[in-house]
Amino acid sequence: MSTKPHSSEVPRVTEILSRYIVNSKPADVPEPVKREALRSFLNWMGCAVGGSQHETIDRALATLTEFAGKPTSTLIGRSERIDALNAALLNGMASHVFDFDDTHLNTIIHPAGPVAPAILALAQRQPISGADLLHAFIIGVEVECRIGNAVYPAHYDIGWHITGTAGVFGAAAAAGWLLKLDERQMRWALGTAGTQSSGMREMFGTMCKSFHPGRAAQNGLMSALLAARNFTSSERVLEAPRGFAHVMSTARDFSRITDGLGASYEIALNTYKPFACGIVIHPAIDGCVQLRNEHALKGDDIESIELSVHPLVLELTGKKTPRTGLEGKFSVYHSCAAAILWGAAGESEYSDACVQNPVAVALSQRVVANAVAGIREDEVRISLRTRDGRTLTKHVAHAKGSLERPMSDAELEEKFRRLCDGVLPPQQTEALIQKCWGLADLADAADVIRAAAKS
Amino acid sequence: MSTKPHSSEVPRVTEILSRYIVNSKPADVPEPVKREALRSFLNWMGCAVGGSQHETIDRALATLTEFAGKPTSTLIGRSERIDALNAALLNGMASHVFDFDDTHLNTIIHPAGPVAPAILALAQRQPISGADLLHAFIIGVEVECRIGNAVYPAHYDIGWHITGTAGVFGAAAAAGWLLKLDERQMRWALGTAGTQSSGMREMFGTMCKSFHPGRAAQNGLMSALLAARNFTSSERVLEAPRGFAHVMSTARDFSRITDGLGASYEIALNTYKPFACGIVIHPAIDGCVQLRNEHALKGDDIESIELSVHPLVLELTGKKTPRTGLEGKFSVYHSCAAAILWGAAGESEYSDACVQNPVAVALSQRVVANAVAGIREDEVRISLRTRDGRTLTKHVAHAKGSLERPMSDAELEEKFRRLCDGVLPPQQTEALIQKCWGLADLADAADVIRAAAKS
Repeated sequence: MSTKPHSSEVPRVTEILSRYIVNSKPADVPEPVKREALRSFLNWMGCAVGGSQHETIDRALATLTEFAGKPTSTLIGRSERIDALNAALLNGMASHVFDFDDTHLNTIIHPAGPVAPAILALAQRQPISGADLLHAFIIGVEVECRIGNAVYPAHYDIGWHITGTAGVFGAAAAAGWLLKLDERQMRWALGTAGTQSSGMREMFGTMCKSFHPGRAAQNGLMSALLAARNFTSSERVLEAPRGFAHVMSTARDFSRITDGLGASYEIALNTYKPFACGIVIHPAIDGCVQLRNEHALKGDDIESIELSVHPLVLELTGKKTPRTGLEGKFSVYHSCAAAILWGAAGESEYSDACVQNPVAVALSQRVVANAVAGIREDEVRISLRTRDGRTLTKHVAHAKGSLERPMSDAELEEKFRRLCDGVLPPQQTEALIQKCWGLADLADAADVIRAAAKS
Repeated sequence: MSTKPHSSEVPRVTEILSRYIVNSKPADVPEPVKREALRSFLNWMGCAVGGSQHETIDRALATLTEFAGKPTSTLIGRSERIDALNAALLNGMASHVFDFDDTHLNTIIHPAGPVAPAILALAQRQPISGADLLHAFIIGVEVECRIGNAVYPAHYDIGWHITGTAGVFGAAAAAGWLLKLDERQMRWALGTAGTQSSGMREMFGTMCKSFHPGRAAQNGLMSALLAARNFTSSERVLEAPRGFAHVMSTARDFSRITDGLGASYEIALNTYKPFACGIVIHPAIDGCVQLRNEHALKGDDIESIELSVHPLVLELTGKKTPRTGLEGKFSVYHSCAAAILWGAAGESEYSDACVQNPVAVALSQRVVANAVAGIREDEVRISLRTRDGRTLTKHVAHAKGSLERPMSDAELEEKFRRLCDGVLPPQQTEALIQKCWGLADLADAADVIRAAAKS
């Protein structure tokens, strides 16, 4: 990576990327990529339904309704409707509030959150086919992940929540493609998006975390709409000496944005979480669930659990005594206790009640996590000592949900059903699953989001 | 300045500042400070009226109307009304679009732009007295400028447009005070504002520049409204290792935020521009206008103009051949040509026509600017050679509009009238001037913004 701030030889990255976006078309994309996009979309929609009842959404909606525009747009999992820009915000928030959405492992971006709600809001504004919506989704994910690739990990290490900071470009690109922006307008859309790029990791564990992808969706959509009216911005927001990659990162590799455009697709590298928390804890949860099931362990059986983990586990999820469900997601200790006690780490195991459960609290105190050099992010080694003197070990080479051990379509559907449980009637859930799988064949893409409204 | 990123001894800056904000009251503020706040407010309002007809506002309004909420709020200088959040955005944009608004010289923040439109929008939502509005304005400016002081110049040097990045905190603080947030809610308001802090200098010369203070006003207002509904964020956004001062600056001095709170007021250091462009060119324009008037110079008389300037002049305003009015504001060359040709550098001298005027273009090519060590930002030395062989010199120690040579109240009023000319009828302009001076005595602060609507 070059750290040189003012190279005169910087390629015209924004121009190249904008040209690619406006010229891309559905027929260019291989079928397996489209299939992975559908899996991403399905997973995202389930997360949005599941998160739609969260108090984070309640409070934001209660605040914003007073100022909102015409109720043209569906709020997923809810009966209220709102204007397109606020729908992009609130649906984006809902999809991330459980931290259960998709992950682009190279960058830890949650790709769907900023993109899908922006383009679904557009689909309720103007006629858009399902095939075009899916293509815009693929393009949006491509743009945000390529920009993420160019600055990760330096950008993330500074403290930026990359789903927000890179996501806003993805939303602008996807919305801009649907709005048929010309090349210059697309550069403006990316510029106006980029100058709103924001969101700090400091917010993790608070309502602002899910606010980030929601705001990225809303701001990116707004940027594309402004560009369509010839609202100007810098035309080289990515590469300029005072542009995104220099201002918001200490290192950058512009070739990661432009090399192989159209030949490879980042959405093909998307992954889906079996557990409702930060992905870095998944190997530990996976391993603890396996040990529990293989040895019929109960909480009282456990003397100690020692984890050898990637350093990021402690950095991101080192909360020793979480107080709320939200904080529990940032605690490898509670997560492992939940895995042993309940054999799962779904949304309910991250309720306030479960996080405050005395048995879980006591067990979590007996979990020790050590950062070990050479352990990958999707790997864990567990050494569990039982009170009767046994030492049980488990090596998870690749956690469930990783690229090497992906969730199957059936597992994604089952996750979707659990997320919709209690929000939508079962028959509506099944119909929504079918609408998602059939997205590319819909004459009117808005059908899929209308099918997600609570009646 | 400390560059140590993870000190355990970092003071609880966000907590201290939040406590100060919620406990502050109008009676605490000395009268001269309130008087300067009124001058700031008057100057801001004139700029907002003047900028209200700009195509930047037209395009943004045309885009956003479709999604806007109930038209509760005045758009300054226009007949349309819009919801409070969009009014904060658009009025903030209008006030900065001419680059003619106030400047806090220590940080180059334009303090009023992010704060005034946020609280005026609130004043059309709920009963707020003029005295309270003025106090909120003072507090908002205090907060943004103190945060700016803590990170300037490192933060600005990275490429952040500090009016946007620090301004959002000011808007949140001012709106939060009016909403009577408690201490914890105020920490949340600052946190939600801070995680939206954004805006890059790369956008200078495009429509996105004025978008920054507008968006800061809107986002800060939204953050305070969310906090009033207990929407949570980090409670130490300023000082946390992954908070604003570490993520968005390479150096910081937290004492600049907390020392002397309530004893000194940043708004007392506010300045107002006699020229409609970046403040760093003001000494050069001032000097050229003086030379022109003293020697009755015409464009054809000039062989060359050599300027000795602070390095920032070239960095910020080095555009040799601007093509548009907006770009002309970032050209010390055009600005000096205008000063010689027309004896002024108001908004009309930065029209596209004036910037493209062949005589102005030719004269601007005969201007040379040299960055000279030891020249202050508000200083210039000019050596002008005439075609008939004379060498005329001028040393401006402090430009007109600086703290040392402030604009008088009468000059501020005259500037206001010129800005309103062609937008509001003269009698409305005079009434608006009186409303601004009398702000603190208004029972209903909304009177002042209603008086700024085009009928």
